[in-house]
Amino acid sequence: MEILNGKKTAEIITKELAELVKERKATGKKIPHLAAILVGNDGGSVTYVNSKLKTCEEIGFESTLIRYDDSVSEEVLLNKVKAFNEDKSIDGFIVQLPLPAHIDEMKVTLAIDPKKDVDGFHPVNIGNMMLNIPGFVPATPAGIVELLRRYNIETSGKNCVVVGRSNIVGTPLSLLLGRNANPGNCTVTLVHSRSENVAEICRNADIIVAAVGSPGFITADMVKEGAVVVDVGTTRVDDSTRERGWRLVGDVKFDEVAPKCSYITPVPGGVGPMTIASLMINTLKAMELKGK
Amino acid sequence: MEILNGKKTAEIITKELAELVKERKATGKKIPHLAAILVGNDGGSVTYVNSKLKTCEEIGFESTLIRYDDSVSEEVLLNKVKAFNEDKSIDGFIVQLPLPAHIDEMKVTLAIDPKKDVDGFHPVNIGNMMLNIPGFVPATPAGIVELLRRYNIETSGKNCVVVGRSNIVGTPLSLLLGRNANPGNCTVTLVHSRSENVAEICRNADIIVAAVGSPGFITADMVKEGAVVVDVGTTRVDDSTRERGWRLVGDVKFDEVAPKCSYITPVPGGVGPMTIASLMINTLKAMELKGK
Repeated sequence: MEILNGKKTAEIITKELAELVKERKATGKKIPHLAAILVGNDGGSVTYVNSKLKTCEEIGFESTLIRYDDSVSEEVLLNKVKAFNEDKSIDGFIVQLPLPAHIDEMKVTLAIDPKKDVDGFHPVNIGNMMLNIPGFVPATPAGIVELLRRYNIETSGKNCVVVGRSNIVGTPLSLLLGRNANPGNCTVTLVHSRSENVAEICRNADIIVAAVGSPGFITADMVKEGAVVVDVGTTRVDDSTRERGWRLVGDVKFDEVAPKCSYITPVPGGVGPMTIASLMINTLKAMELKGK
Repeated sequence: MEILNGKKTAEIITKELAELVKERKATGKKIPHLAAILVGNDGGSVTYVNSKLKTCEEIGFESTLIRYDDSVSEEVLLNKVKAFNEDKSIDGFIVQLPLPAHIDEMKVTLAIDPKKDVDGFHPVNIGNMMLNIPGFVPATPAGIVELLRRYNIETSGKNCVVVGRSNIVGTPLSLLLGRNANPGNCTVTLVHSRSENVAEICRNADIIVAAVGSPGFITADMVKEGAVVVDVGTTRVDDSTRERGWRLVGDVKFDEVAPKCSYITPVPGGVGPMTIASLMINTLKAMELKGK
């Protein structure tokens, strides 16, 4: 069993990007600029956005953070999105989800210029991904594919089960792993809350990606000997032994599943850091697509 | 075993639409207008376009056909697309594929205004479909879903295998049948040329959709007793017993597969007529989306 070390892989990508920025600086070229809009004080969201900005700093990307109170109006938020769309110094930006209930998340997503949509959530980018047209692939699926690629994991012809059909992870990942590409060419089964015989379906998988947000959902009896297991889950559960009072728990019962796997991602230190690395790659791409 | 009679179902839809047009005419409202661009003389393409225009006539839709020789330049074609985009009398239009090799099909598809893209091939419409945002679903997948709906076939929780991952049938259909909708909520496996153990995967399916374009690809040993089988294949094979010299053959060996099925589509008279019916529904929707 080998660990798919997302943390280490993301650090390698960060260093590669830092090297690139150094070269660009030395030749007087533009440096990629990522902006983020954060609404409210949700613990997870604050942590994610801070990690993204910290990574920008490590790489040498420029970054901008705009924070709003929970009570911000949809109009104010949409105006800021419009301003970012028009701001030529900003190559890409994200609006950290989730947003408060009084704001229509889809409306905000649709307001983002697809060319600056480095989260890859806009329908244009989703459609481009399906049609294999250059654009932005959502960061988490892109990070998973990059992790498999860097560990030279054979995907072609393999049975892959993606558990969870969210718009930002499961569904786009099922398209990415099934399309004619490398990594790709998997025979993908997309499993969800209405699926029956989930355990049996998983037992036939060479590759399992768990993206349900349900701690310990994947148990040892659901996993074939030698399978590759990717755990996208990051649920915060109370933990009084930790100073901060919580720990992150994945969708996979790691202790019992790991011994059966050929490769497995840990939580934390697996998919999470790769998501941030992918966002950085997308930001660089946004600048390059503008021809800079 | 019951036949999923696409021909009859499409006729019912045609009558429903004709009734609607009659009502609109009686109240002085706009009548939907579908335009088509046909390049060259490919037998299949000419037949398809003629069927589409004939159906427009039956329903009472307005229609326009522009034909070009095989040698038409990409520029001329793109200019016509632009003219159709701007023509307010046209609600939706299609460019019949395939196009000659010297014309970039994707460039033409991208040039079509997504609001008039009644074939549903533009990335914006593909993305909208994945995100469940109103738009145009490609006609063949939409027709298949409508056929299942009209026969009250239960799809929720069923194992569905889609064979073939084309951009216009297999891949979008896998999204449609897997999403949270009715029909939908299937556990979908998308099988393609790199898949292994295809027969075994198919034998586990409650619903099989064959969209590979390979005559007789699905044989009786690949089908579970009681399965629903949908055949998208329409390959022309020589047949000297027919006056026209050919016949249409599906991807399913009908004679041996049908006795095992609960429901099965014939070829011809199954998915084909439903595709045309869906195009008509999309054309009506295009007009309605404009608020007319």
